[in-house]
Amino acid sequence: MSKVNFEHLETLRQAMSRVNVDAVIIPGTDPHQSEYPAEYWKFRDWITGFTGSNGTAVVTQEKAGLWTDSRYFLQAEQQLEGSGVTLFKENVPGEPTITEWLAQVLPEDAVLALDGRLFSVVDVSQYERFCGENGFMLATDFCPADNIWPDRPPRPAGQAYVHSEEFAGEDVESKIERVLDAVRQAGAESIIITALDEIAWTFNLRGTDVPFTPVVIAYAYLSERERCIFIDEDKVTDEVRRHLKAVNVRVRDYDDVVRFLERRSEHEVVLVDPNRVSDTLANAMPSQKIYAHSPIAAIKAVKNEVQIAGFRSAMERDGAALVRTFMWLERAVNNGECVNEMDVWERAKTERAQSDLYRGDSFAMIAGYKEHGAIVHYQADEESASTLAPDGLLLVDTGAQYLDGTTDITRTITLGNVAEQERHDYTLVLRGHLALARAQFPVGTRGVQLDALARMPLWQEGMAFWHGTGHGVGHFLGCHEGPHSIRTDLNATALQPGMVTSDEPGVYKTGQYGIRIENLLLCVEGARTDDFGDFLRFETLTLFPYDRRLIDKAMLTVGEIDQINAYHRMVVERLAPHLSADEQAWLSDKCREL
Amino acid sequence: MSKVNFEHLETLRQAMSRVNVDAVIIPGTDPHQSEYPAEYWKFRDWITGFTGSNGTAVVTQEKAGLWTDSRYFLQAEQQLEGSGVTLFKENVPGEPTITEWLAQVLPEDAVLALDGRLFSVVDVSQYERFCGENGFMLATDFCPADNIWPDRPPRPAGQAYVHSEEFAGEDVESKIERVLDAVRQAGAESIIITALDEIAWTFNLRGTDVPFTPVVIAYAYLSERERCIFIDEDKVTDEVRRHLKAVNVRVRDYDDVVRFLERRSEHEVVLVDPNRVSDTLANAMPSQKIYAHSPIAAIKAVKNEVQIAGFRSAMERDGAALVRTFMWLERAVNNGECVNEMDVWERAKTERAQSDLYRGDSFAMIAGYKEHGAIVHYQADEESASTLAPDGLLLVDTGAQYLDGTTDITRTITLGNVAEQERHDYTLVLRGHLALARAQFPVGTRGVQLDALARMPLWQEGMAFWHGTGHGVGHFLGCHEGPHSIRTDLNATALQPGMVTSDEPGVYKTGQYGIRIENLLLCVEGARTDDFGDFLRFETLTLFPYDRRLIDKAMLTVGEIDQINAYHRMVVERLAPHLSADEQAWLSDKCREL
Repeated sequence: MSKVNFEHLETLRQAMSRVNVDAVIIPGTDPHQSEYPAEYWKFRDWITGFTGSNGTAVVTQEKAGLWTDSRYFLQAEQQLEGSGVTLFKENVPGEPTITEWLAQVLPEDAVLALDGRLFSVVDVSQYERFCGENGFMLATDFCPADNIWPDRPPRPAGQAYVHSEEFAGEDVESKIERVLDAVRQAGAESIIITALDEIAWTFNLRGTDVPFTPVVIAYAYLSERERCIFIDEDKVTDEVRRHLKAVNVRVRDYDDVVRFLERRSEHEVVLVDPNRVSDTLANAMPSQKIYAHSPIAAIKAVKNEVQIAGFRSAMERDGAALVRTFMWLERAVNNGECVNEMDVWERAKTERAQSDLYRGDSFAMIAGYKEHGAIVHYQADEESASTLAPDGLLLVDTGAQYLDGTTDITRTITLGNVAEQERHDYTLVLRGHLALARAQFPVGTRGVQLDALARMPLWQEGMAFWHGTGHGVGHFLGCHEGPHSIRTDLNATALQPGMVTSDEPGVYKTGQYGIRIENLLLCVEGARTDDFGDFLRFETLTLFPYDRRLIDKAMLTVGEIDQINAYHRMVVERLAPHLSADEQAWLSDKCREL
Repeated sequence: MSKVNFEHLETLRQAMSRVNVDAVIIPGTDPHQSEYPAEYWKFRDWITGFTGSNGTAVVTQEKAGLWTDSRYFLQAEQQLEGSGVTLFKENVPGEPTITEWLAQVLPEDAVLALDGRLFSVVDVSQYERFCGENGFMLATDFCPADNIWPDRPPRPAGQAYVHSEEFAGEDVESKIERVLDAVRQAGAESIIITALDEIAWTFNLRGTDVPFTPVVIAYAYLSERERCIFIDEDKVTDEVRRHLKAVNVRVRDYDDVVRFLERRSEHEVVLVDPNRVSDTLANAMPSQKIYAHSPIAAIKAVKNEVQIAGFRSAMERDGAALVRTFMWLERAVNNGECVNEMDVWERAKTERAQSDLYRGDSFAMIAGYKEHGAIVHYQADEESASTLAPDGLLLVDTGAQYLDGTTDITRTITLGNVAEQERHDYTLVLRGHLALARAQFPVGTRGVQLDALARMPLWQEGMAFWHGTGHGVGHFLGCHEGPHSIRTDLNATALQPGMVTSDEPGVYKTGQYGIRIENLLLCVEGARTDDFGDFLRFETLTLFPYDRRLIDKAMLTVGEIDQINAYHRMVVERLAPHLSADEQAWLSDKCREL
């Protein structure tokens, strides 16, 4: 692979020479700042050979570097070997940042270039300041992917479809009105929308353009007078056209968005989310801009009653599919059948597909056996996949997209021969997971205030995990969404009834095993008091047993034992109607009283 | 009182008329942004009659208002009655803020005035923006207190004294070098210091100018070339003069500071903390300014080994004084003697004064019996003080200044007849207090991440408290200091070994009782691991028993019972050497195993 990439690099350098560009920055994202871009936008992969979901390449005439985070250090080392691209590790002391590196390698008066369609307003303003301080010039219109990439994959051409109000719980007219209300409150008249999940939510549209997230590639613009969606003609079925026409949304070509924005009035005040909207789009508009967080993310995060009912229902089908998957797995391993980590995902997909509402998984399953479980974003492939034996721990993190809801669950199970340390660590992780799940807290509480609840049992014993405790989850949309979170970051968003978040503490012992336990939680109203105001709490949405064999009952309080038993009773009660007698018996055994 | 104040208001309005001022803003602070200003700066009190520690007055020709927070609503209502000054309640929905009110009552082109020496750079910039947006003019040189206050008290004239290195643990030369290092790191060459506790710490000076905090009124300026302190001549004893001369600090008159700053070079880069330095001082300098948090607060917050040893020692003497106080109290009440809330403070002062190192209290004792305990900042006076009977709860929050450390403790005790609800609530508060005290957490953790530990037992039962859980504490300095805290606020400062913080959850039931339990904690190093990095934890500094009679053992885990017993063993062991046999017996009984 490295030889091919070296040629790609050379082609890029020739293109740079032709327009006197000294360095180019190539991101791993698309014009919508998507977490998982389509193949069409994977120019960085084509140039460097690195395929991780996070990573930025920088190329000069003599050198090339790739910056990525700890999840991808190993993968990047392997994929970049012999490619002429140096790996730079993010957040590792002593490693230079992109700008520190550029300041060293670039000559005076150098020209730094990027494709402004792929960088947010905030990103470009930071590179602008860097260039200003160092006497470099910044060109934001260098788009080599459009010219030098001969075998570039086509732009995703999947058709859009309507996400029925039966599942969405709110019609498009109502959503547009709520969005425009928020736009007015922010002091603007119009909004440009570029995040694909925000467009999908606003227009009750879905698609198949991006892996794992059922979105369609598009832009949108809303004002009091005009409603437009910019989308490839081919994607627009008659059903979608009628659906949009009914709410006066004009369909325009995807590539028309810049020309459309250029014709906005100078007097118009447009709301622009500087972390989502690209520099190219923002600067196309002669209008006045109000830079603010997109109000759609905040509105979308609070689920309505129909969406909540859908989540509950999807969890029952997902839990039943996982009962069948884990039951098969346990029996196959105990019978000495040859089952590897990848087979688990295949089986889960088959079981989930029994539901008519299933539309694929919400991310690639992480099935990490023994030491693989300690690699937080492990992805089994043909080469690496371990064969499972009746011994040790298996960590399974998986989720699915159903028309009525998105799931995301992690369970760690023993395949046999439980070690004392495994049971001890599992029980610590479980205690943190339970502490967050049972928390009640006053209205106004932020995720950062609750985060340590899930970590404290580990912290008390000198252990820790370094990922977030909880991320927001979309409704038949992104498995990760904001604006809320339960992390150590100082996120100012307060939790609100209707928000869905994960609860996923873990502990990872390199070369040994990883343990993570994850349920999705729905924020709901809690106690209402005269003296102390109103409280919130969580309802657990996910339905699947913890592994009793890994629980050290002596480490639990009476309250924690009751909490587990009550959860297991709910799991049996809710899943039983979806299971055969054999499956019910298996589940009841897994859920018997502690 | 109201008639007198009405005359004061009239005098002020005449002064406003003479210079065509339409409205004046009068703060409750001094030029050093002190929490407890000296009488000399209590012009707001003289104008309005309101004496609370937080409150801002605004006066126009027709109207006058006073803005204060919920602690002072009752007091302000009483003190402002008939004064012609309207009370406006801060953070109460529907009540206008100062600027909202001004926008309503002021005519077009109005002149708003204030004394720029009493407002920080940030404060003035906010009023400037407000005036700009509303077409008003802002005058920052209106100083009526200097002209129309005939019986103005003199500026505090107490002498400064040297805080011996024996207690401070670091000499002034070393401190100045550390401060200048931090100034250079911030990109500046010099710093203007106006916070009184920062000056006291930097120069190892103390004084008696302000109640409860042993500081001296002064300004200071430090650069590579020049070290100055601005202070009234009368305060400077020969000892202080020699002490300052030894480290090349020039003594200048307090009132010379503005002239001195005016003569700084335009090329000089000065570090200015915009939340501490007054607008007048900042603008006096023609120099370039770097606005940043004062580095002194951050350096000062981390105590050295000598200060830590001093804290531990002060806690023993303070704990012993409180044993004598509470023992006397218990016996007096049980013997039917007439003891009221104010007597408790008097007795504690007498007991503490047995230590040579005692230099007064660190704040006015809050002794709240029964329903008075529910008033968070209750202050007993001749009129209100309750007489104590052998029944119900007494909340005592008190602290002292010793040359080797500052204390701050809250205990809630029963005087007799414990109600079930009292015991239940006390145990919840205690569980939160213990959870924070035993926490271990990774290096880098911020107070906001730990805050909920102390609240969760109450939250789980639909109860809450609305004050912070923990504030920083100075060393023979302010009882409240930053930059760290354990609060719901998004304070970005991480906890560090050597920082002292309070741990003071509570619950307040209006008309019934208040419960608060407070110890001071020292942040220390915890577990050091290869796999998970370094951890921090707390050492409890405060030494005094919890009230066993108020603990419901059935609500505690085995770990919590062990934690209380271990703490009580330490209290007995550390206090016994300071107590008589009779007192030791009393303490041992209070501390017997649960």
